[in-house]
Amino acid sequence: MVFDPGRLKFDDRGLVPVIAQEAETGEVLMLAWMNEEAVGRTLESGRVTYWSRSRGDFWVKGETSGHVQELVEMRVDCDRDCLLVLVRQVGPACHTNRRSCFYTAVRDGEDVEIMAPMV
Amino acid sequence: MVFDPGRLKFDDRGLVPVIAQEAETGEVLMLAWMNEEAVGRTLESGRVTYWSRSRGDFWVKGETSGHVQELVEMRVDCDRDCLLVLVRQVGPACHTNRRSCFYTAVRDGEDVEIMAPMV
Repeated sequence: MVFDPGRLKFDDRGLVPVIAQEAETGEVLMLAWMNEEAVGRTLESGRVTYWSRSRGDFWVKGETSGHVQELVEMRVDCDRDCLLVLVRQVGPACHTNRRSCFYTAVRDGEDVEIMAPMV
Repeated sequence: MVFDPGRLKFDDRGLVPVIAQEAETGEVLMLAWMNEEAVGRTLESGRVTYWSRSRGDFWVKGETSGHVQELVEMRVDCDRDCLLVLVRQVGPACHTNRRSCFYTAVRDGEDVEIMAPMV
């Protein structure tokens, strides 16, 4: 069946959550959002393109920082309301310069930083 | 610093998206939602507990099916508006009996099923 971004179930803002995972290591890098057009742009360009909720605009990941995400594969979940993108992440995915945005673990009820910024 | 579920940034429904990842293999299993109390219950019980948007109630994953998620570690993202739970998944995570909800890949513009239901 042809994949149609229009058949995804977008929320009331017209967005779906997107999990970015490093294709080689399986590390979960970040979660961001796409609208229908961002899904299409990502598939066409091979550059992961989100919708920035704060800026209200397309966000070609790494366009200014160089920390791009090359799309390896897009996957859709059973409810068609969430996407998983397998990517090749250049440099850090997180704006704090860490490889992943999930650098804080909850251990024994405390926040523990488990990842240092990349040099 | 003490982890306080109340300091997470919940959306206008009082929810945060939660990515469940198999701790050993790194496989991304599903995305679901938690409210503040579900976060607390998950940490206290060690059983991953979501908030079901369709039922409007707590959802102890696997409570009826037996396909529970044992919490290995909870992680918080840089914006504190998304969680990653590393889990030991018993049986399939998906209600279609597949290991992961992300069993459909987009390849050459087509939906391709890449994972069969577990027997």
